[in-house]
Parts: sequence; structure tokens; C-alpha cells
Amino acid sequence: MTTPGVAERAGLPHGAVSYHFRGKQELLIESALHSFADALPEETFARMTSLDDMLGLIRAEHGDPEAIDSVVSRLMMETLREAERDPALRDRMSRLMGHYRALIADLVRREQEQGHVSGEIPPDGFATLLAAVGDGLLLHALLDPDLDAPGALEALDVLVRSSYEPA
Amino acid sequence: MTTPGVAERAGLPHGAVSYHFRGKQELLIESALHSFADALPEETFARMTSLDDMLGLIRAEHGDPEAIDSVVSRLMMETLREAERDPALRDRMSRLMGHYRALIADLVRREQEQGHVSGEIPPDGFATLLAAVGDGLLLHALLDPDLDAPGALEALDVLVRSSYEPA
Repeated sequence: MTTPGVAERAGLPHGAVSYHFRGKQELLIESALHSFADALPEETFARMTSLDDMLGLIRAEHGDPEAIDSVVSRLMMETLREAERDPALRDRMSRLMGHYRALIADLVRREQEQGHVSGEIPPDGFATLLAAVGDGLLLHALLDPDLDAPGALEALDVLVRSSYEPA
Repeated sequence: MTTPGVAERAGLPHGAVSYHFRGKQELLIESALHSFADALPEETFARMTSLDDMLGLIRAEHGDPEAIDSVVSRLMMETLREAERDPALRDRMSRLMGHYRALIADLVRREQEQGHVSGEIPPDGFATLLAAVGDGLLLHALLDPDLDAPGALEALDVLVRSSYEPA
């Protein structure tokens, strides 16, 4: 679709769209990032009070294979591919990911303070691990609709629970 | 590149290539799968005797950012994108992934028998988790060269070790 086409669909004069965005590439970047933020709202992350909430969020994505939003998934693939060639997009994506990881690391620290997660686990490393688990499972589920993502999350759950035995 | 182009570069008559592969698409699928198998040889998996070996394999991919083979990574992205539209490729990819997961699950069972991994962890789920961690970290490292993958693997290592306290 062309920039004038986007303007027409949005019911805006072409100038409004081309003034706001420097071109089609920038428009695509903004809409992709907007869709990611929509699919994974920051408020949902901020509301999480436990690691169980976080695992529940990943689990919900996989509970029903139909629930994996194919538009968002395809957008993710296209954006990743585009990010390979576009340093500006890559930079925006890595900052967005870093932001989510920081929210997860805060959650891990709170869980450690409350004694639900072993204090030996580095919180930032654990946040990086959880983000990789979420996207890695999503990636594999796109290739294999029968992927046993709930089994993977159960394994993670057992690991976390059994690593912390309150004295 | 065209099929005759491939034949010319390989020093083969065009007929030899077009007889063996039904078309460009099939040729691309075969070469992509061949590259994955090369990047992650089955023998390496079969040789692994411990979970430490498995984590070491993922760690080695991330130890040196230069070591992440950009050709294989880009091929992975293109293949994933292509797999979205090509059920035959998706099927081949999911069977290949299932094969690696089965090898990892066998390793987990051996580690459980030797008492290095808690028997409470479902081996198949753990294999799915480890495969997702490996590819999820790779995906995120492609977007963010400063990704703390070693920190994530350390967190996983602490989880696994502390979940099993020999009596």
C-alpha cells in the first residue's frame, strides 16, 4: 500500500500522513511497534504481582492454538526480517524488548523479597530467560501447531518451585 | 537466482538440477534444511552427555557476538517467513525441530537417572523449554547485540542446580 493509500483509508489528507511520517518505512515501523504494544500492553505487565501471573500470560497465548493471533505473529516475522536490514527499527525493537525485560526483572526482585523465588537467581538474567522462553515458544508454535508449550511451562514452573524450598 | 544459475554455479547441467529438485521452491527448502543441519549437527547432540553440555552449546552461540553466524541467522528468518506460507516447509521444519527435541528429552532422562536433574520435571516439557530458550535467545540477540544471553543461561543453570538437592 502507498502512503496516499494509507491516508485515504484513514480518511486523512495525504499531507497529514506524509507530514507526520517521513515515509512508508517510518509509517510501517510505527504501526508495527504500535501493534506489539497493543498485543502486550505495558499495563498488563505492570499489573503482574507474581511469577505465576507472568507464566499465566505466556500460557494464555498457547492455551488455545487459535488464540495465537496470526496477524500479530506474521507482523512479528515481517518486522524481525525488516529489522535485520533497518538499524533504526532494530534499535526501536531492542529498546522495547529492554523495557519489557526491566519490568520482568522488577517482578522477579519483588518475588525474591517475598521469598517465592530463590535469591540465588540473577533477576536480570532470569528476565532475559523468561522473555526468550515466551518468544521462543511463540516462534516454535508458529512452525508446529502441536507444540507442547504447556508442558514446557510446567517444566519451568517445577524448576522455579523446587529451586526454592523455604526453610 | 534461477535454477539454471544454480546448475551453472554447481558445474552441473541444468537437467541434473531440475530433475533432482522439482523447482526453485523445493531447492530452497532443501538448502535451508541442509544449512540448519550443518549449523546444528545431529552428532553434536548425540555426543552430549550432560545438561551442562547442552547449556554449553547454547552459551557457545552467544559467547562471542561475532560467532552468531549472520548467514545462518538470516536464512533462519527467511525460512521462518517462508514457512508461514508454505505448509510443506512448515512440516519439514516441525519434524526437524521435533527430532532435536526428542534428542534433548533423552538427555534429560539420562540426567534424571543419574540424579543430576530433579525427577519431578517432565522430560519432554523440559526439552521443549530448552529448545525455546535456545531459539528465543538467538532471536533476541539478532535484535539486540548487547543481549545478556550468558546471564539468562546462568539463571537457568541456578534453577536446574538448586531444584535438585541430593538427599
